Amino acid sequence: MAEANRMRAAGLPVISLAVGQPSASVPERALEATRAFMDAGKIGYTDALGRSSLRERVARQAHEAYGVSLAADRIMITTGSSAGFNLAFLAAFDAADRVAIATPGYPAYRNILRALGLRPVEIPVDASDGYLLTAERLLKEHRREPLQGVLIASPANPTGTVTPRAEFERLIRVAEREQITFISDEIYHGLVFGEPAASALEFTDRAIVVNSFSKYYCMTGWRVGWLALPPELVRVAERLAQSLYISPPELSQVAAEAVMDATAELDAIRDVYDSNRRLLEAALPQIGFRDMAPVDGAFYAYAGVPDGEGEATAFARRILAETHVAITPGTDFDPARGEGFVRLSYAGHPTEIATAVERLRRHLARA
Amino acid sequence: MAEANRMRAAGLPVISLAVGQPSASVPERALEATRAFMDAGKIGYTDALGRSSLRERVARQAHEAYGVSLAADRIMITTGSSAGFNLAFLAAFDAADRVAIATPGYPAYRNILRALGLRPVEIPVDASDGYLLTAERLLKEHRREPLQGVLIASPANPTGTVTPRAEFERLIRVAEREQITFISDEIYHGLVFGEPAASALEFTDRAIVVNSFSKYYCMTGWRVGWLALPPELVRVAERLAQSLYISPPELSQVAAEAVMDATAELDAIRDVYDSNRRLLEAALPQIGFRDMAPVDGAFYAYAGVPDGEGEATAFARRILAETHVAITPGTDFDPARGEGFVRLSYAGHPTEIATAVERLRRHLARA
Repeated sequence: MAEANRMRAAGLPVISLAVGQPSASVPERALEATRAFMDAGKIGYTDALGRSSLRERVARQAHEAYGVSLAADRIMITTGSSAGFNLAFLAAFDAADRVAIATPGYPAYRNILRALGLRPVEIPVDASDGYLLTAERLLKEHRREPLQGVLIASPANPTGTVTPRAEFERLIRVAEREQITFISDEIYHGLVFGEPAASALEFTDRAIVVNSFSKYYCMTGWRVGWLALPPELVRVAERLAQSLYISPPELSQVAAEAVMDATAELDAIRDVYDSNRRLLEAALPQIGFRDMAPVDGAFYAYAGVPDGEGEATAFARRILAETHVAITPGTDFDPARGEGFVRLSYAGHPTEIATAVERLRRHLARA
Repeated sequence: MAEANRMRAAGLPVISLAVGQPSASVPERALEATRAFMDAGKIGYTDALGRSSLRERVARQAHEAYGVSLAADRIMITTGSSAGFNLAFLAAFDAADRVAIATPGYPAYRNILRALGLRPVEIPVDASDGYLLTAERLLKEHRREPLQGVLIASPANPTGTVTPRAEFERLIRVAEREQITFISDEIYHGLVFGEPAASALEFTDRAIVVNSFSKYYCMTGWRVGWLALPPELVRVAERLAQSLYISPPELSQVAAEAVMDATAELDAIRDVYDSNRRLLEAALPQIGFRDMAPVDGAFYAYAGVPDGEGEATAFARRILAETHVAITPGTDFDPARGEGFVRLSYAGHPTEIATAVERLRRHLARA
C-alpha cells in the first residue's frame, strides 16, 4: 500500500483494490449533525460506555434488524471495533487462554490476541468447505485441546463468507455447551447480498457482539463502533474502558447516531457494491483466478493466484508495477497458505473496478 | 461522579471539582478547520502513524517549546494519550516487566499496566518529599529488585508536582545507565505556573514521550495525542497501532493541527487556571485541608482531608450531599493511603471555584 501511495503521488493512474474502506463519503446527515453539535456545545469526554442516546439508538436498531429486544444498558460504544476487540478479549479471557479463529482471517485478531498475552488458535478453512468454520471443526479443535473462546466473523474478511443461519446457531450452541466464550464479529452486517446474516443476538444473551460504524455506515476514519455484552460483562468492560480509552470520540458518536437514519443512502451504496461483486464473481474465474471464496458479503473477493503467476506477494507487486492495480497478497490473512491467494476489495467506484478487471485480464492474457 | 450527574439532572446546583477536563471550549480555529475539512473531503483512515502534516507540526512545536530538533518520523499521532500509554507499554516491555510509577498517581497507569500483564511498582511519595519521585528513590527500588521501566509525569496528576529540571535529568541519567526504559508523561505541559517543565526530549532520544491535545489544548473529547519515540521503536509501535487502533480519528487530527496555532487563546485559558490555583492554594489550608501537594502545574490540588472529617470517600460523599460540591477521594490515586486525601480539579470557571471554596469553608466551619 505504501508503494501504491508512492506511485499515485508520482502521478500514475493507480487503482487500489487493497483498502478495506468504502469509497463513498458518509451520508450528509451525519455531517449535518456534527456541524450542529460543534455550533451548539462543548465537546468533551462522554461516559466510558458512550452517549446514552446512541446506546438507545443501537438497541433500537437491533430490534429493527433482527427483531430482538436488547437492553440499551448492554450496549457499549467503542472507539471503532478495534477497541471493541480489545475490550472483549480483556473482559472475557485470562492470560494464555486459547481463542479459535478461522484462517484466512482479519490479521488484527491474532495480533491483538497475541499482544494481550492470549493464544489465537487458527483453524484453516478453504475452498473445499466454502471457507466456513463449522461447529464440527470447532468441537474437534476443542477436544484436541480445550478452547476458552471462539471468534466468528460473518460476513468474513477476507473471504466474504456468510455463515448460514443453521450453522451459526450450531456454533453458538456448541460454544455454550462447552463454555467457550462466543465472540461474533458483525462489522460487515448490512453488506450481505443474499439472505441477511444471522446475529448472535438472535440466539443468545451470552455472546459478545462486536460491531462498527466503519463499513455499512461508511465511517472508517471516525473510529466508532459498539459492543453488545452479556449483562455480567458490562461493568468489567466499562472499568477497562475507563482506563484504556476514557471514552470514544464524542463528535463521532454524534455523527453515528445521525447516520443510523440514513439507510436509504446506505442501501444505495450497498447496491453499488453488489454490482461490483457480480462483476468480479463472473470475471475473476474467467481470467484465471482459482478457488474463489464465496462473495456473499463484506466487500472482498478472495481467490487463488492464477496458475503460472507464482507467489502472491510477487504477483501483487508485479500487477501493481505493470498494471497499476493494487491488490493484497493473502499472506496478510493466512501466514501459512497466503502466498497462494490475493484479496480484492470492491468497495470502490464501479468504473474503477471494471477498469481494474480489464487491466488484469489483459495482463494475464499476455503472460 | 455518577451521583453528581444524577443530582445535577435533578436540578441541584452541583459544582464539580471532580473532572479532569478543561471547562473551556476548544478554540474556534480548531472548529473552523474541522468544518472546512468536512466540507471539502472524505473522512477516512489515516496512516497508523497519523497525518504527516500533523506529525511535522508536532515536531516543529517541540523545537518552539524546548529548542530541540526532533524528526517528524519519530512522532506518532495517537488516539489520545490512552492509546499512547498502551502502545508505549506494549512496544517497550515484555510480560511481567516491572514499571515504577509514583503513588499517588493517575490510576490508568496501573490499570493499563496490569491489563497488559505488566507489573506496576508503586513508589509512595508524600508531603515530606514534596510528592516527588526522585532518582535516589528510583535507584533504591531498582537495587531491591530490577526495574525495566519508569514512568514520570511532570506535571503530575493528582499532585500537580513539577519535577525540577535537575532532578528530571538525574532520573533520565539513572534510567539510561541502568537500562530502565524512561517514559515521560508530558500531557500537562503548557499548564505550569512557575519555571516551564523540562521535557525528556531535551536530554535524550531514548525516552518515550507521551503527550495529548486534551489538557492545554482543551480537546479531551476528540481523543487525540502523540508519542515521541526512540527511532528503533517507531516501526514496532506502528505495527501495534495498525492492529490495535488502525488510525486515530481523522477529524480530530485536523482539528489538532489547527489548535496548535491558537496559543494566545490557550495561554489565556491557562491564566484562568492560574488564578483558580492561587485561590485554592491560599484557601484550602486556611479552611482546614492538610499536607497540600505543590500546586505547580496541571489543574489539580491534592490535599489531606481536614482533621475530624474521617475518611476521604465518606467525606467526599458528605460534601456532595450537603454542599453540592463534587471532589474526588484520594483512593482513586493511592489505594493504600488515599482515604486520607482528596483531589480538587480547578479547570472550571473562577466564580464556580470561588463558590465551591466558600461552600466548603462554611461546611467545615460548621462541623
